[in-house]
Amino acid sequence: MLTNRQKIRIEWGDCDPAGIVYFPRYFEFFDACTRALFERAGLFKRDMLKTYDIAGIPVVDMKASFMIPSRFGDDVVVESSITKWGTSSFVVHHRLMKGEAIAIECFETRVWAARPNGDTEKLTARSIPEAIKAKFGAAEEATN
Amino acid sequence: MLTNRQKIRIEWGDCDPAGIVYFPRYFEFFDACTRALFERAGLFKRDMLKTYDIAGIPVVDMKASFMIPSRFGDDVVVESSITKWGTSSFVVHHRLMKGEAIAIECFETRVWAARPNGDTEKLTARSIPEAIKAKFGAAEEATN
Amino acid sequence: MLTNRQKIRIEWGDCDPAGIVYFPRYFEFFDACTRALFERAGLFKRDMLKTYDIAGIPVVDMKASFMIPSRFGDDVVVESSITKWGTSSFVVHHRLMKGEAIAIECFETRVWAARPNGDTEKLTARSIPEAIKAKFGAAEEATN
Amino acid sequence: MLTNRQKIRIEWGDCDPAGIVYFPRYFEFFDACTRALFERAGLFKRDMLKTYDIAGIPVVDMKASFMIPSRFGDDVVVESSITKWGTSSFVVHHRLMKGEAIAIECFETRVWAARPNGDTEKLTARSIPEAIKAKFGAAEEATN
Repeated sequence: MLTNRQKIRIEWGDCDPAGIVYFPRYFEFFDACTRALFERAGLFKRDMLKTYDIAGIPVVDMKASFMIPSRFGDDVVVESSITKWGTSSFVVHHRLMKGEAIAIECFETRVWAARPNGDTEKLTARSIPEAIKAKFGAAEEATN
Repeated sequence: MLTNRQKIRIEWGDCDPAGIVYFPRYFEFFDACTRALFERAGLFKRDMLKTYDIAGIPVVDMKASFMIPSRFGDDVVVESSITKWGTSSFVVHHRLMKGEAIAIECFETRVWAARPNGDTEKLTARSIPEAIKAKFGAAEEATN
Repeated sequence: MLTNRQKIRIEWGDCDPAGIVYFPRYFEFFDACTRALFERAGLFKRDMLKTYDIAGIPVVDMKASFMIPSRFGDDVVVESSITKWGTSSFVVHHRLMKGEAIAIECFETRVWAARPNGDTEKLTARSIPEAIKAKFGAAEEATN
Repeated sequence: MLTNRQKIRIEWGDCDPAGIVYFPRYFEFFDACTRALFERAGLFKRDMLKTYDIAGIPVVDMKASFMIPSRFGDDVVVESSITKWGTSSFVVHHRLMKGEAIAIECFETRVWAARPNGDTEKLTARSIPEAIKAKFGAAEEATN
């Protein structure tokens, strides 16, 4: 499985009065890590949206477990991979690592979403093009 | 069950290039709604942390389903209640409503977390004081 | 001068490990307050962008002085007004009040920005329509 | 002058419905760049706060000019240096570069702030220790 490893420095502004990361920030990290995972498969998000005429890949379902808090100044690593490809949706698995320990585990279900007829107010799920899955497959093989 | 209803205006800065709320923002909304729910039970967070000598009530588990996106300028309502009290943890249920429709459903499991011996680096779960649960019970009865 | 007064509760997630508001958050508050000021003049941002075919009213210049910090749980009020109308730009003045004291003073210079020929990559300043200034004038008179 | 150069990838979540960076985000970038500048001088923020018993280095004054917008997917570089050392305050100058062009220029005035007597509610400016300025001087010489 194609896995991306992203180093993240926890910043002062990521943390709350308890001195630990304010949890919504983790979801910003994970969103950036999903972007980076696609990039590793050769898919640059800005171009991908244009090429495939989609509005985005919004999250429709989210599960996360927070086992170990992180503090500002900490260096962590997020490992991300796609664990399931559906017809119009896919699941991204993120593990935030502090050294050898899993600090957070998160599953994002995202959809391939277009705007029918250029409608700016509605998003509709579309079939994920085979070309996208093929890119991930090829990148995976290249790393083996 | 004590339920808090919080009106939220979706701001420009809450939204992404697809024109809809950037999903980590929802978790910021829900965090503020949990705070507001406690306040409705007569528990002002800043005082509560001091009185009970805890560092916070961090989220340890999170599930969310996103059914309908929201755009900047939308007015939504978040209904929040505590659906389960454990020994040292509790579950907050949030429903983000657009009119009559449930746009998002979210369950946060939070713990009552202290810093043993003033240690700034570690958080430990503690038993939730009966006084806290009693406050919710009393507020609930008052609204019936 | 038309002035909008916006009450803001400082949330846990607005604050940093020092327990005070993480300063970029103030600019999010002020951006929402500019939106609210326009609304007070009868201009709902989402409709305004459509009606006048602009991409936004981005900030091009910003000055801020932070005199008194705010902590989570604080209730503050932001007073906002437009202190200068130029041809294609205008200046918004925000004062964040803690009781009678000015805690922060901020001046935002914003431009009326369109996308020439639907180009998604470029923003160009346009003349502010007289109708906009008239709306502010009328709202001002209505409050006197 | 000791200058830090920080590469930043503009993320989807940094951008607003106009597709460009939501401006308060820039101040988060700059805050992280100030942290990185100190680190380049051998001063790791978390340790520095402990060693010198300060609560932080909050911004008291801020000026910024936004010349060129950035879009998600852009790679930018922030060049940061301290242009003035006062007794208890200092000025950090940030320039966000898009290639050879200055996209944003920002000046942050920050203070060396302690909590007198462990008071959690008040911040007081303190004299910046000579050791801090010396660290910057030494790092500067090392880069020449």
